[in-house]
Amino acid sequence: MPIPATPAPGQFEGGCAFADGAYVPLSEAKISLFDWGFTRSDVTYDVVSTWQGAFFRLDDHLDRFFVSLEKMRLTLPYSRAELRDILHGCVRAGGLQDAYVAMICTRGVPPKGARDPRMAQNRFYAYAVPYVWIASRDKQLQGIDLHVSQRIRIAPESVDPTVKNYHWMDLVQSLLDAYDQGRDTSCVVDAQGNIMEGPGFNVFMVKNGVVHTANRGVLEGISRRTVIELCERLGIPLEIAPIPLAEFRQADEVFLSSTGGGVLPIAKLDGQPLAHFPGPITGRLSDAYWSLHDEAAYRDPVNYSG
Amino acid sequence: MPIPATPAPGQFEGGCAFADGAYVPLSEAKISLFDWGFTRSDVTYDVVSTWQGAFFRLDDHLDRFFVSLEKMRLTLPYSRAELRDILHGCVRAGGLQDAYVAMICTRGVPPKGARDPRMAQNRFYAYAVPYVWIASRDKQLQGIDLHVSQRIRIAPESVDPTVKNYHWMDLVQSLLDAYDQGRDTSCVVDAQGNIMEGPGFNVFMVKNGVVHTANRGVLEGISRRTVIELCERLGIPLEIAPIPLAEFRQADEVFLSSTGGGVLPIAKLDGQPLAHFPGPITGRLSDAYWSLHDEAAYRDPVNYSG
Repeated sequence: MPIPATPAPGQFEGGCAFADGAYVPLSEAKISLFDWGFTRSDVTYDVVSTWQGAFFRLDDHLDRFFVSLEKMRLTLPYSRAELRDILHGCVRAGGLQDAYVAMICTRGVPPKGARDPRMAQNRFYAYAVPYVWIASRDKQLQGIDLHVSQRIRIAPESVDPTVKNYHWMDLVQSLLDAYDQGRDTSCVVDAQGNIMEGPGFNVFMVKNGVVHTANRGVLEGISRRTVIELCERLGIPLEIAPIPLAEFRQADEVFLSSTGGGVLPIAKLDGQPLAHFPGPITGRLSDAYWSLHDEAAYRDPVNYSG
Repeated sequence: MPIPATPAPGQFEGGCAFADGAYVPLSEAKISLFDWGFTRSDVTYDVVSTWQGAFFRLDDHLDRFFVSLEKMRLTLPYSRAELRDILHGCVRAGGLQDAYVAMICTRGVPPKGARDPRMAQNRFYAYAVPYVWIASRDKQLQGIDLHVSQRIRIAPESVDPTVKNYHWMDLVQSLLDAYDQGRDTSCVVDAQGNIMEGPGFNVFMVKNGVVHTANRGVLEGISRRTVIELCERLGIPLEIAPIPLAEFRQADEVFLSSTGGGVLPIAKLDGQPLAHFPGPITGRLSDAYWSLHDEAAYRDPVNYSG
């Protein structure tokens, strides 16, 4: 599919989308009500950030997106090079230095009366908006209070969590619980009571100097992978294994990882202060996370001029 | 929210939608890419049919829709009377006698940077399109071949199946399996191997004169309820309890129930012919299902004139 000329820098100041083959302002970023991406949530997506004018780990996000597409048997109507151009184009047109950049592939609108997913022409959407924080800077300093929900995450036997997806009803319910109780965000468990993930982030705990995170049933986040790689680089012991709820509540430190905020320290679990906030290991990992943004291997600068 | 004047009969011949407060042709029926109804599948819906110019069991569908809204903590921007007017308006403007009519309520577009579901203004969408069949008339006569998938339906502990929802990735995967194997549609099981439901329908089996259907983990379909009520009316024994996969494969008759086709007889399970097709009990229930469409208590005629 041919892509249109890249819009002028700042043409859609503040945010730009790409929908149905054209760059458009955010207000015109729409999808058909009949797209199976909506009516069956038959869709995969990825989110990458730009920070100070450069994409962070763009190739890793693209790699994961293409793996998700293949697992879902979705075909992007654009090549990898074109996809990259479109993402750059959205950021450039939005005039954004720090951006939250989404790429979305839906099953598409079915031919009249059809029910066979193979018969739809898959569709692609993208947008760049100002960087999104899982929690504001103020809230981070003040201390995020995490609600540990007993709601059960959709099992990996039903929906493959390594394919980034919009099946969030369980997470939304846990978020509603959290806000009702005056907490800031939430995470959910599996049927065995092990800590899984939250809406838009992976969860880590630190106990006796060892960093722990779940081994299954969760999104294999790029930020999660960054934390895992940083533990190795910094010589911090790491265990990737189930985290029982009871152990989680006894953690020394807890933090989240997300493209929407990097490494985010947690201050409280359901109102109960953790032993350390901000914890020393969380602090080292957070500093290292942001330092990585200056390393050339992780940067893909946006061309904002002519 | 004020609703616009009902469009003229046939103004959008062939199909009409209602989106963002206006009646529009189907090609303009769109939803924002940023609506949480899409990006979190934070949405509920219902589908009702019209048959020969009258809605079938409209009040029952509206009742269920309002229960779903309440469970999801969604607020319709319209009253029940207005909702009814909009649905009638879509059918009338579409000039449809036999129609598939959807009503959809999404969480809505979040305020900038917000993550709290309570902060979004919920949105309403509707449309009427020509009646949709789970399987064409030809295919029904020829005999539907049902793929009995071992894929596991999203558990009711994670997503409440009595709230009609778009969490379909498991169903879509089972459909892809079915089509790859040359079958016509599919159903899935729970973690214990009991028959659950398929994409858009409930599943029944008949064994030794007794009709069986699942008691939990499935949508409480209005067509399923119609079948249950018809069993009572016709004096056919009914058991609402788990159906183990092995028993299902030994069924005398199997049929599906759906707003998209009523009572649909199954001829084969994974290519293996069932003992009876079309089965005598399935036939009685199917006839009774369509006869019900003539009873005044179930009919809500559409006004197609000025």
